Amino acid sequence: MPKLIKKRSRKAGLPPGTLIHIGEKKVEELKITVINYDETHFQEREIKTIEECFVYKDKPTVTWINIDGLHQVEILEKLGNCYELHPLVLEDILNTDQRPKMEDYGEYIYIVLIMLNYSDTDKGIVTEQVSLILGPNFVFSFQEKEGDVFNPVRERIRNSKGRIRRMGADYLAYALLDSIVDNYFIILEKFGEKIEFLEEELVSQPKPETLQTIHHLKKEMIFLRKAVWPLREVISGLERGESSLIKQGTGIYLRDVYDHTVQVIDTIETYRDMLSGMLDIYLSSVSNRLNAVMKVLTVIATIFMPLTFLAGIYGMNFKYMPELDWRWGYPVIWLIMIGIGVFMLVYFRKKKWL
Amino acid sequence: MPKLIKKRSRKAGLPPGTLIHIGEKKVEELKITVINYDETHFQEREIKTIEECFVYKDKPTVTWINIDGLHQVEILEKLGNCYELHPLVLEDILNTDQRPKMEDYGEYIYIVLIMLNYSDTDKGIVTEQVSLILGPNFVFSFQEKEGDVFNPVRERIRNSKGRIRRMGADYLAYALLDSIVDNYFIILEKFGEKIEFLEEELVSQPKPETLQTIHHLKKEMIFLRKAVWPLREVISGLERGESSLIKQGTGIYLRDVYDHTVQVIDTIETYRDMLSGMLDIYLSSVSNRLNAVMKVLTVIATIFMPLTFLAGIYGMNFKYMPELDWRWGYPVIWLIMIGIGVFMLVYFRKKKWL
Amino acid sequence: MPKLIKKRSRKAGLPPGTLIHIGEKKVEELKITVINYDETHFQEREIKTIEECFVYKDKPTVTWINIDGLHQVEILEKLGNCYELHPLVLEDILNTDQRPKMEDYGEYIYIVLIMLNYSDTDKGIVTEQVSLILGPNFVFSFQEKEGDVFNPVRERIRNSKGRIRRMGADYLAYALLDSIVDNYFIILEKFGEKIEFLEEELVSQPKPETLQTIHHLKKEMIFLRKAVWPLREVISGLERGESSLIKQGTGIYLRDVYDHTVQVIDTIETYRDMLSGMLDIYLSSVSNRLNAVMKVLTVIATIFMPLTFLAGIYGMNFKYMPELDWRWGYPVIWLIMIGIGVFMLVYFRKKKWL
Amino acid sequence: MPKLIKKRSRKAGLPPGTLIHIGEKKVEELKITVINYDETHFQEREIKTIEECFVYKDKPTVTWINIDGLHQVEILEKLGNCYELHPLVLEDILNTDQRPKMEDYGEYIYIVLIMLNYSDTDKGIVTEQVSLILGPNFVFSFQEKEGDVFNPVRERIRNSKGRIRRMGADYLAYALLDSIVDNYFIILEKFGEKIEFLEEELVSQPKPETLQTIHHLKKEMIFLRKAVWPLREVISGLERGESSLIKQGTGIYLRDVYDHTVQVIDTIETYRDMLSGMLDIYLSSVSNRLNAVMKVLTVIATIFMPLTFLAGIYGMNFKYMPELDWRWGYPVIWLIMIGIGVFMLVYFRKKKWL
Amino acid sequence: MPKLIKKRSRKAGLPPGTLIHIGEKKVEELKITVINYDETHFQEREIKTIEECFVYKDKPTVTWINIDGLHQVEILEKLGNCYELHPLVLEDILNTDQRPKMEDYGEYIYIVLIMLNYSDTDKGIVTEQVSLILGPNFVFSFQEKEGDVFNPVRERIRNSKGRIRRMGADYLAYALLDSIVDNYFIILEKFGEKIEFLEEELVSQPKPETLQTIHHLKKEMIFLRKAVWPLREVISGLERGESSLIKQGTGIYLRDVYDHTVQVIDTIETYRDMLSGMLDIYLSSVSNRLNAVMKVLTVIATIFMPLTFLAGIYGMNFKYMPELDWRWGYPVIWLIMIGIGVFMLVYFRKKKWL
Repeated sequence: MPKLIKKRSRKAGLPPGTLIHIGEKKVEELKITVINYDETHFQEREIKTIEECFVYKDKPTVTWINIDGLHQVEILEKLGNCYELHPLVLEDILNTDQRPKMEDYGEYIYIVLIMLNYSDTDKGIVTEQVSLILGPNFVFSFQEKEGDVFNPVRERIRNSKGRIRRMGADYLAYALLDSIVDNYFIILEKFGEKIEFLEEELVSQPKPETLQTIHHLKKEMIFLRKAVWPLREVISGLERGESSLIKQGTGIYLRDVYDHTVQVIDTIETYRDMLSGMLDIYLSSVSNRLNAVMKVLTVIATIFMPLTFLAGIYGMNFKYMPELDWRWGYPVIWLIMIGIGVFMLVYFRKKKWL
Repeated sequence: MPKLIKKRSRKAGLPPGTLIHIGEKKVEELKITVINYDETHFQEREIKTIEECFVYKDKPTVTWINIDGLHQVEILEKLGNCYELHPLVLEDILNTDQRPKMEDYGEYIYIVLIMLNYSDTDKGIVTEQVSLILGPNFVFSFQEKEGDVFNPVRERIRNSKGRIRRMGADYLAYALLDSIVDNYFIILEKFGEKIEFLEEELVSQPKPETLQTIHHLKKEMIFLRKAVWPLREVISGLERGESSLIKQGTGIYLRDVYDHTVQVIDTIETYRDMLSGMLDIYLSSVSNRLNAVMKVLTVIATIFMPLTFLAGIYGMNFKYMPELDWRWGYPVIWLIMIGIGVFMLVYFRKKKWL
Repeated sequence: MPKLIKKRSRKAGLPPGTLIHIGEKKVEELKITVINYDETHFQEREIKTIEECFVYKDKPTVTWINIDGLHQVEILEKLGNCYELHPLVLEDILNTDQRPKMEDYGEYIYIVLIMLNYSDTDKGIVTEQVSLILGPNFVFSFQEKEGDVFNPVRERIRNSKGRIRRMGADYLAYALLDSIVDNYFIILEKFGEKIEFLEEELVSQPKPETLQTIHHLKKEMIFLRKAVWPLREVISGLERGESSLIKQGTGIYLRDVYDHTVQVIDTIETYRDMLSGMLDIYLSSVSNRLNAVMKVLTVIATIFMPLTFLAGIYGMNFKYMPELDWRWGYPVIWLIMIGIGVFMLVYFRKKKWL
Repeated sequence: MPKLIKKRSRKAGLPPGTLIHIGEKKVEELKITVINYDETHFQEREIKTIEECFVYKDKPTVTWINIDGLHQVEILEKLGNCYELHPLVLEDILNTDQRPKMEDYGEYIYIVLIMLNYSDTDKGIVTEQVSLILGPNFVFSFQEKEGDVFNPVRERIRNSKGRIRRMGADYLAYALLDSIVDNYFIILEKFGEKIEFLEEELVSQPKPETLQTIHHLKKEMIFLRKAVWPLREVISGLERGESSLIKQGTGIYLRDVYDHTVQVIDTIETYRDMLSGMLDIYLSSVSNRLNAVMKVLTVIATIFMPLTFLAGIYGMNFKYMPELDWRWGYPVIWLIMIGIGVFMLVYFRKKKWL
Repeated sequence: MPKLIKKRSRKAGLPPGTLIHIGEKKVEELKITVINYDETHFQEREIKTIEECFVYKDKPTVTWINIDGLHQVEILEKLGNCYELHPLVLEDILNTDQRPKMEDYGEYIYIVLIMLNYSDTDKGIVTEQVSLILGPNFVFSFQEKEGDVFNPVRERIRNSKGRIRRMGADYLAYALLDSIVDNYFIILEKFGEKIEFLEEELVSQPKPETLQTIHHLKKEMIFLRKAVWPLREVISGLERGESSLIKQGTGIYLRDVYDHTVQVIDTIETYRDMLSGMLDIYLSSVSNRLNAVMKVLTVIATIFMPLTFLAGIYGMNFKYMPELDWRWGYPVIWLIMIGIGVFMLVYFRKKKWL
């Protein structure tokens, strides 16, 4: 479960465009990879200095520069200078607590996304902000750390699978978006399984920990929702196609991602509704158990209190208590007591307490 | 109750338009039926290879091709090539976890619907995705398995009942839509009966299982809602009549289906409200029963504790206890005890605890 | 309380425009009355065959044909043929589970309304669908059974009271609408009284039946809401005056009905809010009573348990128990016991438990 | 607390424009006052017959006619005839259960408002409908009874304070509106104090009456909301300035009232949220107290039940019970009992029950 | 925690534009500071009389006049006269209970904001209304008391850091807005920490005070929301750039602040959701503890009641009770009692009550 809020306080009051990395440093070494391709040609390499990729600026081929790690501010600055990126864009790339958004700067489009991963070690979502910059012939992607969901896209470029090599940078941006949204489905599958498991547990044997788990899942749903909800607007903004950077043919693919996003949101809402329902079930099962406990207590007390009272009566030391001297007094009192007990049991059974 | 989410993970990362069937294989054998008709002529046959239906492509008559089973991807591919369907459409047909949507590709309109059936064996909803493709002179329908709600439409075509034979492919698409929406009413009737039955049970004799049933129905309502809600948009999109594929005269019929859809949604909302109300009733009936149990316990304890105490007093072994030697001590103590008991009973009756 | 849903299943799959009456047959004999009037002339009669009213078709006077009972489908068919009504309109007249709607067919406007009555025998709402067809010089009204809220309108026509005789068919349609909405206020008054009565009961003496009543009222509010909410759209659709059938001067009256409808909806929402509040009050009064019961039990147990224990001590049969032989042992133990009891009572009073 | 709904039933079915006063007669004697002014001239008088004010109709000065009491329908009729008011306006003035609305009749604007007063005797809101008619050179105000919030406006006119004497009738209407909205703040202050007082009580010493008060305040908030919410639309309708009756310069003042109205609505929503939160607190404090009570009971029972059992053991009359004959049996049993008691107390203290 | 509502009552009925300070006087001495700058020149001074700053009116440089303290109404009046501010603006500056708003008066834009501070002494939010007036070459800021979040902006102007000295008055206004919104993040960080701490406490050891804290935080969230929500509209109003006072280049910065505001609102909503979840957890933990207490009571009662009854039996004084004379009667009864006790314990362990 990611932190609720990242420390922005160290940035407060600084002039806009000041480049300071908000969020923890998640990677030791910055890693820059460049993929350059068109329909016939493909090149992929890892570079050491950012200057190496400036050569691609005016080439007609599509260039995808991916940067893992955000702590070396000067690299970003150089890239920004070369490609004339607005300081606010650079600042936003470093503020890793953005909500997804899309900003059209004319020359390029800036997109912020949240990439989610399910960590099996933490048993929860791991979050990472991904910034994309889409220009006429390039896509830049900025990640907080190594490891992403883009490998299938890389494979498709390498092997020239699908139409990706025939299309431009806008299609590449779409493919990256699509990978991220596709990955949400995998996260949702995990949660779906958890919720179904929890539901069975709830019916068979609810425990106080069940409540903790429901609460935990609800919190993760709140988090997921916050991450995915604004994405809808982002993609529909891209799809509306007011930017010349998005070509006609890509629009239909963006509509497809849009549908997926709506489906993800729908599923999150469904999960939320279900978790609320489960909470109700849990609370009422607690009440039901209290009822059961109290019935046991009441049955026991109702049977033994009158009997103990009777025994107390004949434990009194009055001189003149004729029953005490009767020959069959003791067996008779036993019979009376057993009678009372049996009557009570029958009564409670009729009342469905037993 | 259908699964919450289908395994999309095996698709993640593949290029868009990759044809992979999402969802379980529900039928062994693919079945293709063709119905070809105009006002004077009618033909119906089952075919083995998809190529057989390409002959209908340029005929002026209306052709309805229905395919049950989605696991043979190559058949879809051939059909797509012949009729120039967009790869994303073919992909969506195979992804059987879509939310209802309508996409206008100019040459044809693609519609995704969810067909519901009430299964008496599972005591719940069975769901099946139906894809419709409406072209100028054809309608394709894709189902996951055999068995559907379209038989009355087939009958009407066969017997030339109503205006269906006189109208075009758009009217046929409407008729299929209408069958699916009509079927929702039947599902809702079933639920309506269940809810009314449950409500009576709730008043007469609430049980822990009642809660389970309420919870289960609520979940099915969430599911239904998710399936029907987007349909509104789909049909109003068709009705707005921006596509030339929908002729003037069909609009009025679509408005009719639209009204039905709104009525279905209204009813689902009403059911949800009612189920929420029933949950409140259930929970408070649990509290009421706890109250009743505790009153019994309190009455018993309040009557017998003082009496047992009194008996305990005269069971003490002090040497100088004058009462013990009184001639009428024993009867008097009985009278006092009975007096206390009667007083308590009267008191509790006045307090309305008995 | 009307049924949640009417059996539509017997209609599923039939071609649109098939005339089948949905809903129970509520009247034995169909009754057709015709009122024909203009400023100077007035005629009212009951007719046996529908053909008799075809003579009014081309007269310049306003004709109001009211039909009570919907089970004779052929009468509707003949009327439909004569006045060229769309088959879907005829179908909708017979489907008595419509939500209120307005459809402009150019030549005529079709309006569906729900007429409510408060039945003193059933202690609840009785519902009846009313269909209105407004043409250039006629209004048709279709009701499920005899008895309606239109008598004041009839009186005004007969006695030429108000402006009704001077105005056209659109004003007549308005007058009928207005009668139905006015009647909602009477229903709401009944509920208002019930809710105020219930609220007093809730404060003075809540009973488990109170909960049932709250639940019942909530359900009727859900029902009312469903019936009235779409009416807003219907009337604002009429008022917007896009149809040439609604004359300029009638618009202002429709705005008046519109205001009334909004007021009805407002009041329903207020009632719903109040009933929710009352449910909270009820539930917490249950908790409060449980608290009271438990306090009684605890007080009794806390006082008598130590005393009984003490009595038990001196009921032991040890040989060497010096207190037993003391001259004042018995009175002293009484004093100690009374002391403990008084102390407990004072303690509980200080804790505000008594 | 005003009645939920006023008796409209006696009006049902009457033709529109029928003048019948809905609501209780709140004043014995009708009172008509006229204020007539321009920048240099001022006249104020109370008149007996409505005809006296017809002389002001064509004067260029601003005329404000205020009528307290609505039960003399003929006065309204005469005024309506003279100033050509629409019958529906007259009808609405008499129906004192309107929701706030604004209707532009071209020649004049009709505004309905709800004037609230806090009555210290009833400890609640007192409501009164105020109707304003704004014409080119006149404002009519209709109130149900004497006493209003307009005195400061009267003072300002009399003393020529502020710009009121320099401005036209539209500014006067604004000033009246402003007085009514300003008064809402005073009502809200009262409620704010009540809520803060209640909150302190809730923390220090919650009582069942606290719940009643929360419920009562919630109901008054529902009522307030219903009265103020539509006002927003009314004022923004006036401000949009589509009527020529509202001069340019007044728009900015209306925007000011609009802001105040939004602030009132905001505050009402905040109060509602807070009262909901207080209800939660109350309910959980009830649960907490139940817990405390049950702990006392459990501690007492857990200590004394084993002890009483032990005492019961040595009260048995078996012949061969060696302990009974031991010299130190009695003191030893006391020690054991005290030991058990102390152990229990320590145990419960460790469990934080004491 | 600020007061819910400020005393507006003393203003009710006064003509609009009357200058009366609403809210408590928070500062003894009024303090006026002037900062005057352009790209090359900078001047900062504290002045005594407001007239001293009139000299800046027609200078081309940017003038920022900051006034701390609002109780000296005449100073505001003089400033208003000199810069021709509308009386309603002056009135609004003094009414320190405004909701954030933006009003475009053509010559200048009036903005109201709420500046928040977290007070460590009060453990809560401290609120202060800030009014900004943005003219072509000036910004006025009005604060209720000394101390603000603008120091970083002052530093940047003094040291000519960033672009602030090169830009106009609109950029200065943006910078002030930005400081205030940045400060919201710091407030939210504090609350985020509190909520996380509370959540841990809730899991490990819930106390009645936990509930109070949750309630308190919820209230502060309601307050925060009320303060921040309207800000969105304010900034988007500025950003839409309809005023000529906002230059092209500043729009992009305003979009940045807008994004931050949306993020703040998002976070507040997330916190509210989480606090609601925590309330549920708390309430159910109370129920769980009640369950635990009741189980202890029931176990104790169920074990000792039958045993005490048995002991009572053999404490009876019947003459003929053969068991009493048996040699091994006493040990046997002990064995039976121990057997019953062990059986009960095993039974409860199996039922998972122990």
